[in-house]
Amino acid sequence: MLELYHNNISVCAQKVRLVLAEKGLAWKGHHVNLRAGEQSRPEFLKINPKALVPALIHDGAVIVESTVICEYLDDAFPEPPLRPKNPVDRARMRGWAKVPDDGIHVHCASVSFASVFARQIKAGFDAKGLEERFRSMPDQARAARQRLIMEQGFDVPFVRDAVRAFDKMLADMEKTLADRRWLADDAYSLAEACITPYVERLHRLGLGPMWERGRPRVTDWFERIQARPSYKTALTDFKPLDYNDLLIERGESVWPDVEKVLKAA
Amino acid sequence: MLELYHNNISVCAQKVRLVLAEKGLAWKGHHVNLRAGEQSRPEFLKINPKALVPALIHDGAVIVESTVICEYLDDAFPEPPLRPKNPVDRARMRGWAKVPDDGIHVHCASVSFASVFARQIKAGFDAKGLEERFRSMPDQARAARQRLIMEQGFDVPFVRDAVRAFDKMLADMEKTLADRRWLADDAYSLAEACITPYVERLHRLGLGPMWERGRPRVTDWFERIQARPSYKTALTDFKPLDYNDLLIERGESVWPDVEKVLKAA
Repeated sequence: MLELYHNNISVCAQKVRLVLAEKGLAWKGHHVNLRAGEQSRPEFLKINPKALVPALIHDGAVIVESTVICEYLDDAFPEPPLRPKNPVDRARMRGWAKVPDDGIHVHCASVSFASVFARQIKAGFDAKGLEERFRSMPDQARAARQRLIMEQGFDVPFVRDAVRAFDKMLADMEKTLADRRWLADDAYSLAEACITPYVERLHRLGLGPMWERGRPRVTDWFERIQARPSYKTALTDFKPLDYNDLLIERGESVWPDVEKVLKAA
Repeated sequence: MLELYHNNISVCAQKVRLVLAEKGLAWKGHHVNLRAGEQSRPEFLKINPKALVPALIHDGAVIVESTVICEYLDDAFPEPPLRPKNPVDRARMRGWAKVPDDGIHVHCASVSFASVFARQIKAGFDAKGLEERFRSMPDQARAARQRLIMEQGFDVPFVRDAVRAFDKMLADMEKTLADRRWLADDAYSLAEACITPYVERLHRLGLGPMWERGRPRVTDWFERIQARPSYKTALTDFKPLDYNDLLIERGESVWPDVEKVLKAA
């Protein structure tokens, strides 16, 4: 039996759900409420001492780290294969799978916080409550970053760096897709499963213009991604529980802020 | 043909040389002098635009990122296998291979700088020359970190964090080795190739007491690692070119500083 400890909008959990969906595997989900801090409770720390989702349990064996879980699922359930046969293409696939781990994941948190979470948290607390919230966060470096973003939004240097890193990733994708239909070779692979959640996040934040204006191959790639059944099963079927991060639906837009950062580069 | 762009004491290059040695593969080396900034020259940027060693060229195909290169070599040259057959053990192997990428690599730079490089650079410049060196560094955040370490050594919070992260890694190794002979299962694997250079670095810095005092399984593991022909072929045969980082040979010791950090934790 496959059990997944996950969270509806965690990008790392989305990766794994995409792989499960592409392989047509049945699994039992346990939703971990990150806002309520469930990942730090003793019962979850027994599963993953790092207090991170996703965690996969397969016949009693615990596998953690989304990139490792994706490769595990392809090892344990080889059909349909999600890794290229050719070693060079396979290395290219692994290069793409590493992109989130090497920076984009952290940048995604910065851009998401600057776009949505900052204003949602601001709206939910008075000045005193906000201070208390920051003081009680276990990771004080993170609290300091959040405070900065709340004060300065897209003017914070590391938020600007994050926007530029995403722009670089999309430029690299555009270049890669000139030579092949998918990121690693001519078939959908773990490269897609690992990159899709980050592109989808930009899309949810209303930042589609980052590729829709001038990156036709990424635009086409994302349309093909969205047309696959796995996109619905693994991503859009899982709604945020306790807030709505769909800026588009709320008629708000951070694109002008992001466009300004990109133009200044 | 296999060609490797590498550096004698780069930990990431050491990983790849270990895999090449364990597989008995012949390769042609191109030493990249990192101190002279050769990794940023146009001819190398054509090979790896990220300006990082190692880079492997196999029959014309360029593979970068040491973790990806290690898996590539096992895909392209399957014998002897360096990845466990069982998917769960293989996931454990990948978990260990990720440890450097997830923090230990950066911590290694901090500990190495605090132990050796800081005093070597200090000894090589007068006050004005030192200022000039920092001013001309392309990565100013890195320059700021180096300056802090030169002033405060092992009292810098991120250096202390680095020491503690290594201590945590060694504790995790000790725990893992209670159940099996090697990190992933009962055979030497890429887990060993990826972790060895970081333990060897601590050893070169005279920090062996971190495991020799109270971690018998890591001590035994490292003795077995050192007894393998690959340790000599891939590591000790490659001497630093332009400085000597063997504190032990110079009769210096940073162990008391490190011990103080560990005792304060």
